Amino acid sequence: MSGNTLGKLFTVTSFGESHGPAIGCVVDGCPPGMALAEADVQQELDRRRPGTSRHVTQRQEADRVEILSGVFEGRTTGAPIALLIRNTDQRSKDYGNIVETFRPGHADYTYWQKYGIRDHRGGGRSSARLTAPLVAAGAVAKKWLREQLGTEVRAYMRALGEIDIPFEDWAAVQQNPFFAPNAGIVPRLEAYMDDLRRSGDSIGARIDVVASGVPAGWGEPLFDRIDADLAHALMGINAVKGVEIGAGFDSVRQRGSEHGDELTPAGFVGNHAGGVLGGITTGQDITASIAIKPTSSIRVARRSIDKQGNAADVETFGRHDPCVGIRATPIAEAAVALVLIDHALRHRAQCGDVRTDTPRIAARAPD
Amino acid sequence: MSGNTLGKLFTVTSFGESHGPAIGCVVDGCPPGMALAEADVQQELDRRRPGTSRHVTQRQEADRVEILSGVFEGRTTGAPIALLIRNTDQRSKDYGNIVETFRPGHADYTYWQKYGIRDHRGGGRSSARLTAPLVAAGAVAKKWLREQLGTEVRAYMRALGEIDIPFEDWAAVQQNPFFAPNAGIVPRLEAYMDDLRRSGDSIGARIDVVASGVPAGWGEPLFDRIDADLAHALMGINAVKGVEIGAGFDSVRQRGSEHGDELTPAGFVGNHAGGVLGGITTGQDITASIAIKPTSSIRVARRSIDKQGNAADVETFGRHDPCVGIRATPIAEAAVALVLIDHALRHRAQCGDVRTDTPRIAARAPD
Amino acid sequence: MSGNTLGKLFTVTSFGESHGPAIGCVVDGCPPGMALAEADVQQELDRRRPGTSRHVTQRQEADRVEILSGVFEGRTTGAPIALLIRNTDQRSKDYGNIVETFRPGHADYTYWQKYGIRDHRGGGRSSARLTAPLVAAGAVAKKWLREQLGTEVRAYMRALGEIDIPFEDWAAVQQNPFFAPNAGIVPRLEAYMDDLRRSGDSIGARIDVVASGVPAGWGEPLFDRIDADLAHALMGINAVKGVEIGAGFDSVRQRGSEHGDELTPAGFVGNHAGGVLGGITTGQDITASIAIKPTSSIRVARRSIDKQGNAADVETFGRHDPCVGIRATPIAEAAVALVLIDHALRHRAQCGDVRTDTPRIAARAPD
Amino acid sequence: MSGNTLGKLFTVTSFGESHGPAIGCVVDGCPPGMALAEADVQQELDRRRPGTSRHVTQRQEADRVEILSGVFEGRTTGAPIALLIRNTDQRSKDYGNIVETFRPGHADYTYWQKYGIRDHRGGGRSSARLTAPLVAAGAVAKKWLREQLGTEVRAYMRALGEIDIPFEDWAAVQQNPFFAPNAGIVPRLEAYMDDLRRSGDSIGARIDVVASGVPAGWGEPLFDRIDADLAHALMGINAVKGVEIGAGFDSVRQRGSEHGDELTPAGFVGNHAGGVLGGITTGQDITASIAIKPTSSIRVARRSIDKQGNAADVETFGRHDPCVGIRATPIAEAAVALVLIDHALRHRAQCGDVRTDTPRIAARAPD
Repeated sequence: MSGNTLGKLFTVTSFGESHGPAIGCVVDGCPPGMALAEADVQQELDRRRPGTSRHVTQRQEADRVEILSGVFEGRTTGAPIALLIRNTDQRSKDYGNIVETFRPGHADYTYWQKYGIRDHRGGGRSSARLTAPLVAAGAVAKKWLREQLGTEVRAYMRALGEIDIPFEDWAAVQQNPFFAPNAGIVPRLEAYMDDLRRSGDSIGARIDVVASGVPAGWGEPLFDRIDADLAHALMGINAVKGVEIGAGFDSVRQRGSEHGDELTPAGFVGNHAGGVLGGITTGQDITASIAIKPTSSIRVARRSIDKQGNAADVETFGRHDPCVGIRATPIAEAAVALVLIDHALRHRAQCGDVRTDTPRIAARAPD
Repeated sequence: MSGNTLGKLFTVTSFGESHGPAIGCVVDGCPPGMALAEADVQQELDRRRPGTSRHVTQRQEADRVEILSGVFEGRTTGAPIALLIRNTDQRSKDYGNIVETFRPGHADYTYWQKYGIRDHRGGGRSSARLTAPLVAAGAVAKKWLREQLGTEVRAYMRALGEIDIPFEDWAAVQQNPFFAPNAGIVPRLEAYMDDLRRSGDSIGARIDVVASGVPAGWGEPLFDRIDADLAHALMGINAVKGVEIGAGFDSVRQRGSEHGDELTPAGFVGNHAGGVLGGITTGQDITASIAIKPTSSIRVARRSIDKQGNAADVETFGRHDPCVGIRATPIAEAAVALVLIDHALRHRAQCGDVRTDTPRIAARAPD
Repeated sequence: MSGNTLGKLFTVTSFGESHGPAIGCVVDGCPPGMALAEADVQQELDRRRPGTSRHVTQRQEADRVEILSGVFEGRTTGAPIALLIRNTDQRSKDYGNIVETFRPGHADYTYWQKYGIRDHRGGGRSSARLTAPLVAAGAVAKKWLREQLGTEVRAYMRALGEIDIPFEDWAAVQQNPFFAPNAGIVPRLEAYMDDLRRSGDSIGARIDVVASGVPAGWGEPLFDRIDADLAHALMGINAVKGVEIGAGFDSVRQRGSEHGDELTPAGFVGNHAGGVLGGITTGQDITASIAIKPTSSIRVARRSIDKQGNAADVETFGRHDPCVGIRATPIAEAAVALVLIDHALRHRAQCGDVRTDTPRIAARAPD
Repeated sequence: MSGNTLGKLFTVTSFGESHGPAIGCVVDGCPPGMALAEADVQQELDRRRPGTSRHVTQRQEADRVEILSGVFEGRTTGAPIALLIRNTDQRSKDYGNIVETFRPGHADYTYWQKYGIRDHRGGGRSSARLTAPLVAAGAVAKKWLREQLGTEVRAYMRALGEIDIPFEDWAAVQQNPFFAPNAGIVPRLEAYMDDLRRSGDSIGARIDVVASGVPAGWGEPLFDRIDADLAHALMGINAVKGVEIGAGFDSVRQRGSEHGDELTPAGFVGNHAGGVLGGITTGQDITASIAIKPTSSIRVARRSIDKQGNAADVETFGRHDPCVGIRATPIAEAAVALVLIDHALRHRAQCGDVRTDTPRIAARAPD
């Protein structure tokens, strides 16, 4: 099928452009009978919403979601759930100077090369604004996973540029605009971002995602391994340049006797695997980490070319996130949740209902 | 569809187990009219074949491929190409001790949890032997890409455990059993592996892949971005725990003014993007890097459990690669080539024939 | 993937219920650069619209379409095209009496059995109203086929109940509410429908579809033959119970020497094949015919049961088409056009750009 | 994905040509734990096998199947099941005269137009021989449906040319080479075929399929309705030109009060629906009927053209079925079984395990 659908059994088909009339998606394959209200979706969208602190884009979008279908008397019916978000705060004239040129590091150039036509306003289809429908769909997935199986997907910022952020506790994550799991480091992050913003430049970030309460046995080897599908969904997020599962690139230097997580009757004694062996979940936490590149829309002047191939300097105006990684935390959660629910459904297609009560063997990882 | 098919338009459907009668795949969607002989496929299989040096598994498999269909009078017909490889050197009794237990770090455990039945012989379906059909299919993809578009996919070993391998030249890669792009470092790699083998342990590796001669414009945003599909295919290779495109995790610490590759009338001045912007190819080289974990089948005794959940020590006999990363180089090339041909076909479906002669603008990256 | 998407490369993902806030679809895979305005879609929707004659449902819906995405400055961009139609004339209370019971011959029963929850209002998801998004998507497909390749898809009513309608000319089709290709028979059809309406009963119909200007070579054997995909799309329309290609069921009694269309240097001498041989188009007109069952929502009282399995008589109120076949003509055209564009794109993926100028051999069918 | 795969969760990927080294398929998605032996598959292949009576092709093929993967110690493992059938009795020289010409009514012409290359030997990929892998895959599906759910799929010949065959009993079907459900009519069928064979001509047939023991609730509206998927699979069989579900084309002349099957506490009182309402199974028998055209390979001389477009008479030698409909009975069963198992798995993905014991309401159709 075409390229704007994610998933096989629980599918999200996305549409919209940054400055078009609306963005949204159609979620197909949601099991029937789940309570679902717009507030359930809104709550996740609000976490990703622009304009909520001085460290993110100042575009003011309420990102108000409307459920157009698939819910009847407050419950999902099994029919597709269409989610609509109207755009309200476009300032397309800010983008006048990039009609004819290409921002370095931006999809401006490749969309033009591919299609020969490009909605340049606010990045059009390639805008990070298009992560909102993903978050909306992810809210549906998260709710089902939580309610049916007790599966939780959570993420946090692990590094902002060169600042590593030591994990302290989950509670902190929701209490600062960086999704940092460490209250003490927040002033330093704020100062760092204030400096960066003044310089007109941007910076990368690293986000870690943890899914807990995942039953053993999800994943479809060979090719649709759950780690492969996680990599697909995470690398598919705007600006992501790297994905790790479990020990990730540290595995390169590990010996087998160190990397391979031993098992005891009490469960696994480590989780270098990141909860996945052979493409199938182990029942431990799934852990993934992503690298997010710095925003390409920056005020610093840069060399580029125009559509005729002539040299042209580009400075980007408009309103932009100096670190797209900041708002990437709820997006990464959504991407992971969407892969998990898809595999939950695929698993029960082939192997029958997921049994949360009786694992095939006694050993389960401690939380 | 089910999980053992890779690709959407150029698809590979894999089958087989390590110690079953045969392994193989069906390649569907290959354009008609391409010259194809068994030797074309064999040549790539021979690069991945076991038993070719003392640093890899000593299992002796000729990996002789038979083309069962889709080729007539030496040319592809547009019909599915079935590729069959008989298994000949199984020693299933070597695996008697893992019928009831699970190797730490191995898919033994998860296959059991998922299916409740497991072909334990040689790892069954989860064996790295199943990368052979991928390589066979990749040979078809590579040939088409090379002949139609001049696209080449090459890989090399960038690190073996803690030894980083500086890139010197492509010529070296085919002249040592490690696929190291550096002849001078080979004695050190050999000594390292000899020590490791004696210890009964295993080690990880890092492989870099470069695709050159890729036209601008391939990739299907939003979700089937070409980087997302590359991540899917690469993370889907046995033992891979991390994937990077371009600058990868280094992007985290980069500023936008450093990361974003400037454009001049002579082309891009850098390639932090790894040849992909917004999920679409730029026309520069695509660069990817993967982390491969150490083999989980090691002679060192380890703690595990049996099917009843009781404690059980596991030592692995049988013949194994002490570094699965060594033979991963042709596998990574195959995975990338399969994604590229799939997107080449997807691109011409939506946008018409790929034009290698007339880019939409003058700017193209130098090689 | 999930069940509400039609097509593989040119996909339509449908959403909505008869009495929900809106219905619509996302069209993905449309080639970039085609001029497209809401009027292009509206024109097709108006042909299917309810309330336009006394012979169809009296529900008043403007069926006003809004293009939410995928079009920039009047041209398609290659991004998904979301099409939204608000529902405006719901009278859900008319359906109060079927909350607890099931209309004989209606999906009321099966939706309940499948999902355990059912939006009963106006038939919910199973309403024929959901053919509107199909027609909207079909308008995009028809425009591309016409402009790029000169392919036209047209349909007409061939039988209304026991009245066979001899084909006279295409011009008549658009000039009567029955899409009858025969002006002279219209008074008889009107009288027939008036009688039927008074009786409170309903009737079936047969619709013929003809696609002309189809290049030879479309279709993906073995399973995604173009005739198989046409059968899928046509049988997927509400109320369709039979599909024929070319000679259809008459083939049963034909001898090979009669059925097989001979070829001469001037082209085929007949078209029993209906333009398809071996699942691939011949270059002749594609001809298909569908049987549409009588509407199940009728005023005549019928035996049924309630949710508890108790006997319950059902009379249907609300506003219904006494012959759903009347409005099925534009719907059948849309379904066929969607299959054709999907295969046009699939063909050029595997075999390169469609050549309308130079067939491989001289022989082409006369129109 | 590409065109040689049938199904979404239980998939069959077919390969092979009539005179190549082998034909076969990969079955992916079969649930684990089912007992499966080659004999289970062979038994169905033997029903379709050529050369078993004087009324079918005299090609002698043992059609001996080999299971290459997916089965361990006699049970399915959840991994792909590859099924291989070697070709043994090719007489490719019989086809020398059609290297340069096209048999009227045959795919010779369209394969050439599509691909520009064609394996002409025995019809190559378009040969009815390629229904053997479908039957092999269908054997796996039928076994699972029968053992898990008590679902049976059976077919019979309903008409041979102009001879209608009244249904008498299922027992007769397996006792004559025509799959006629009526022992008394067999001598007439034999005489008819003997005459036909002498004439060098061929004839069509009609086959009816009945699936019993199908739970209510299977089918994925809107587009992947179970009737739509049945139409796709059945129209995808070689030579099929028409498909009906339930009352089929008779629906055209029926009134709603006649067609709509009433419900009583004891179940449905009729089955014009053919077991499907709104694209979802009702729990009644699924009934379908297909029209099979006469074989295009006949000895009678016919007008055609050669590759240069010049006039050329064609007489077909080689060994052919004078009525491909005769062997179509097990093929139609396989196609229906494959759709059913696919929807069984899709249903339990979205709605959980199929409950055969507790329907949502008391009413069920009598067997």
